[in-house]
Amino acid sequence: MSRPLILVTNDDGIVAPGIRALVEVASSLGDVVVVAPDSPQSGKGHAITIHEPLRLRKVNPFQGIEAWETSGTPVDCVKLAKHVVLKDRKIDLCVSGINHGSNASINILYSGTLSAAMEAALENIRSIGFSLLDYSFDADFEPSKPWIRQVMEFMLARPFESGQLLNVNIPKLPADKLLGLRICRQADARWKEKMVEGRDPSGQPYYWLSGEFVNYDTARDTDVWALENGYISIVPSMHDLTNYPALKTLKDLEHTHLH
Amino acid sequence: MSRPLILVTNDDGIVAPGIRALVEVASSLGDVVVVAPDSPQSGKGHAITIHEPLRLRKVNPFQGIEAWETSGTPVDCVKLAKHVVLKDRKIDLCVSGINHGSNASINILYSGTLSAAMEAALENIRSIGFSLLDYSFDADFEPSKPWIRQVMEFMLARPFESGQLLNVNIPKLPADKLLGLRICRQADARWKEKMVEGRDPSGQPYYWLSGEFVNYDTARDTDVWALENGYISIVPSMHDLTNYPALKTLKDLEHTHLH
Repeated sequence: MSRPLILVTNDDGIVAPGIRALVEVASSLGDVVVVAPDSPQSGKGHAITIHEPLRLRKVNPFQGIEAWETSGTPVDCVKLAKHVVLKDRKIDLCVSGINHGSNASINILYSGTLSAAMEAALENIRSIGFSLLDYSFDADFEPSKPWIRQVMEFMLARPFESGQLLNVNIPKLPADKLLGLRICRQADARWKEKMVEGRDPSGQPYYWLSGEFVNYDTARDTDVWALENGYISIVPSMHDLTNYPALKTLKDLEHTHLH
Repeated sequence: MSRPLILVTNDDGIVAPGIRALVEVASSLGDVVVVAPDSPQSGKGHAITIHEPLRLRKVNPFQGIEAWETSGTPVDCVKLAKHVVLKDRKIDLCVSGINHGSNASINILYSGTLSAAMEAALENIRSIGFSLLDYSFDADFEPSKPWIRQVMEFMLARPFESGQLLNVNIPKLPADKLLGLRICRQADARWKEKMVEGRDPSGQPYYWLSGEFVNYDTARDTDVWALENGYISIVPSMHDLTNYPALKTLKDLEHTHLH
């Protein structure tokens, strides 16, 4: 039986420690091809590059693993992987990460890591975004690895249809404190932000985004609850943003006529 | 009674004709403040700027209307508007657009126009993204204006809770061919894409994204159907990407134990 083809990408850039950890796990399960950004792309959301060309260079940061870096966003990486690097070969699984920092709750909207995974899912590829709740460069990815392997094996063994995109977040805990996997919905949390004002060397003002994550959605079926209680959260996610309950309540608008 | 405070933004940039049309409509209904990108930001999705500072400059492209241009993405514009320009004054409505080109179906994921509106909705501001299905600079926004005014009036008069974000797309038709408003779900369409390869002047390869929109979801309750049949489509949208049906089908994963 041939080994599955696994595409690995991320948003922290191809030389981040997190993607190295993910490549290690993925290469124990299948043939790995890495296509990742050549610079940090955190917060890029579902951005794509349409007003300028993209660069794609073969590189060798992972011994024995085919790897390419691109000048694009994480979503661009998936498009380049599919159409150029893999020339429409069947990709059995796309994994993105391991992100340095949480992508739980609404962070899925801002996250390049998860948007890359979403893009693969749109292309009918099973897809998983992995994030560790530790922003530091020296984050310890070892406790995550066996769990990541389990989730990847589960997805590879499943029929494609249901829950093809998983948003997996892992608490910053030693191996013996990780309680297991928990299927969750996205908590309805927010960023409480401010713009920090400063002056550049020539005296001109600038603004720099700063914020803290706040969660008022304390239900036990959320990803934030799971993470705060020692579980690895798994949110099946999708690209349909329709607010279905509102379809009915807005029906009156259809009766609008111009005066 | 005081006039409502209306924030106007877009992703085509502050000098695009579409935002001028939207400012005209908005200023007939309330006090308008414009905070928009200083350059085209199409396809930026929900990107935010976190690794560098943002610039914010007062400008005067709209006679008698307070306007600011920023170096950031559309989502950055909403954050700068809220925290710096309006210093947390209550914003009654945020309108984004009028986008030059469709944001129906999955385009909501890639669209800076809709992501800006989504960001305002996250901040508990009623919000609407408007798009005209005409990419050209010389697009005729006149037939759209009375309908846009109706939708804005409807949203201003409603209680906040239900369907606070609307994705409104307008077909490219003369006024007498526009059949009215239709409440829809997001069609499950896709982009069929390729990367066009070229060589730069120094002989190095580059790749440029190209694609066509294809829709196999022909149901009559979708935005794409409405637009193809002369209606203005209105999709109530939201930030919860949880795939609820998959919560059950994935439950087995919770029984995972490490060997």
